[in-house]
Amino acid sequence: DSDVGKIINIAVIPGDGIGREVTPQTQAVMGKAVGDQVRLNYVDYDLGAERYLRDGTLLNDEDLESIGQQDAILLGAVGDPRVRSGILERGLLLKLRFSFDQAVNLRPTKLYPGVSSPLKNPGQIDFAVVREGTEGLYSGMGGYIRRGTDQAIATETSLNTAFGVERAVRYAFDLARKRGGKRNVTMVNKTNVLPHAGALWLDIMDKVAQDYPDVTWDYLHADACTIFLVTDPSRFDVIVTDNLFGDVLTDEAGAVVGGIGYSASANINVTDEHPSMFEPIHGSAPDIAGKGIANPTASILSGAMLLEHFGYDQAAERIQRAVEEDVAANASRSRSTQEVAQDIIARL
Amino acid sequence: DSDVGKIINIAVIPGDGIGREVTPQTQAVMGKAVGDQVRLNYVDYDLGAERYLRDGTLLNDEDLESIGQQDAILLGAVGDPRVRSGILERGLLLKLRFSFDQAVNLRPTKLYPGVSSPLKNPGQIDFAVVREGTEGLYSGMGGYIRRGTDQAIATETSLNTAFGVERAVRYAFDLARKRGGKRNVTMVNKTNVLPHAGALWLDIMDKVAQDYPDVTWDYLHADACTIFLVTDPSRFDVIVTDNLFGDVLTDEAGAVVGGIGYSASANINVTDEHPSMFEPIHGSAPDIAGKGIANPTASILSGAMLLEHFGYDQAAERIQRAVEEDVAANASRSRSTQEVAQDIIARL
Ligand SMILES: CC(C)[C@H](C(=O)O)[C@@H](O)C(=O)O
Ligand SMILES: CC(C)[C@H](C(=O)O)[C@@H](O)C(=O)O
Repeated sequence: DSDVGKIINIAVIPGDGIGREVTPQTQAVMGKAVGDQVRLNYVDYDLGAERYLRDGTLLNDEDLESIGQQDAILLGAVGDPRVRSGILERGLLLKLRFSFDQAVNLRPTKLYPGVSSPLKNPGQIDFAVVREGTEGLYSGMGGYIRRGTDQAIATETSLNTAFGVERAVRYAFDLARKRGGKRNVTMVNKTNVLPHAGALWLDIMDKVAQDYPDVTWDYLHADACTIFLVTDPSRFDVIVTDNLFGDVLTDEAGAVVGGIGYSASANINVTDEHPSMFEPIHGSAPDIAGKGIANPTASILSGAMLLEHFGYDQAAERIQRAVEEDVAANASRSRSTQEVAQDIIARL
Repeated sequence: DSDVGKIINIAVIPGDGIGREVTPQTQAVMGKAVGDQVRLNYVDYDLGAERYLRDGTLLNDEDLESIGQQDAILLGAVGDPRVRSGILERGLLLKLRFSFDQAVNLRPTKLYPGVSSPLKNPGQIDFAVVREGTEGLYSGMGGYIRRGTDQAIATETSLNTAFGVERAVRYAFDLARKRGGKRNVTMVNKTNVLPHAGALWLDIMDKVAQDYPDVTWDYLHADACTIFLVTDPSRFDVIVTDNLFGDVLTDEAGAVVGGIGYSASANINVTDEHPSMFEPIHGSAPDIAGKGIANPTASILSGAMLLEHFGYDQAAERIQRAVEEDVAANASRSRSTQEVAQDIIARL
């Protein structure tokens, strides 16, 4: 096999809570799926709440430098009740996305047979959200003056550049073509209220669409999109949107397909200059952490996205198929984290 | 009856599409509900797409001045496929909300018995969203430079002031007390990503909560909130949030309670210095406009909110009850706009 001898160096950041429980299972599944096609070389990073509480480190230059030398990042989850909200998110998770210029946050949304949707008539749900990952309201730009007085004022600024938007939009059109389904891209924004950012996004859609005569596109306001996600989610093929709308819509979408326990994601550096990062959408779930009962499926599917990113499409598909079979057979049973992983491995 | 001789001057702006069909029905229902308790004096304003296409007027100083002299505004809907998206929204609807300093956009969300929710297990849904109405990302602040070049950049700025946030938050706590239910206010934001605005909102919550020892409060990230709206909407009592999150969440909430055809709203000027405005959440629905089949229920419920605003609680409750009975009896039948209104009037 011509791939023997190949290697992918993967920075592993289990992070906090159930992230530490699901990530090792994902590594086991990935290993089994690739066999000896490629060596997965894992480099562990002790980052997250424990490290922060121990020595105050979130993500220092040394860590960044070292992680930046790996080919990819496998992340579990960040967040811990002992650390004030925002510290780990901004200092670790968002810092990784921004430092490694992860332009596209790709979030496939699929209702697997056997999984119970909270919707009465979910239909066939299978779409992907391409969320811009490096700008918008996530830039951190803003200020808060006169704090504690009646004249206090705080601002947040959404930054939208042709550079940032175009690479996300191109990715979305490419993806619609590659998926070979409806071949449609739906841009979601709120152009009637956000005239400047809305116009830039529409300009880029117009421009990029010319290079994809085989892909159609339409536009939806974000509020209308939240409705369709509940009333007609099967209408979507590829959604492209900004960082904040993407955050909100993908959680709603995750709920609609039976819970974010099945929602994987990839934070993609589109030039491969820096590592891309693969992580489940769910958080660290402190309420169930340490019990060994977290569902590792979203993390395992994120592992499949990692393999697909490096061209190991067959290994990725094997994991996908094993997960689908496993879910169809077992979604209603309660199993331990390890049992789920073992059941999936057994089907590979 | 001591109220005889009283009068409410109401600026009526039917606007576009189905707004023009539902608004007259609401006026009929309101008239019947108040009887001779109070005179409803309607002043019609020809505003919306037709006017704009005819003479280019959206909302001029003269209109504003005149509407400002009325006690309240009853609005149908704005939006027309012949007018570029954003023109009517910003030039008319948002201009009214901002000019009349309508600080609170109140959106009750209730699943009426007989109405079919898209959720399998909706539970008892009955909460209200208090959406800040005059700032946030709706300020219009921002810019778009280098348009058409690879260096294009567009910004939007979210403005959050202690003044604006505090009046919305106080309204929310008052409402939780008045509703007398769970007595809980849930603040929704994205404090882990929006550090400046998030901190200001949290500061104001902390401060205001001290005046309401009988009301509890909690905090939810907007993405988590979109999940709970689908998986556990009955958990909410009063939600308070900013202008953009409020926009998105109330549409999702409307979908969850069976469609925004049942969702009323009030844009409240909390000092009564300017008129408050009452409008259904739904839009002008160009696809069904002119057919006489639009459901007037959301508009009629907005009329009830208007009456309640002026202290005519019993008339408002009569409409509420008539709507509930009507919906329970007829929600699954298809009726004309006029039939629905007649059926409701018959129950008053
Ligand atoms: C944890 C948080 C900063 C993050 C985000 O807002 O992007 C999360 O919600 C997500 O969607 O990955
Ligand atoms: C029409 C639009 C400007 C408006 C808004 O965004 O506020 C609408 O969606 C609403 O929720 O009332």
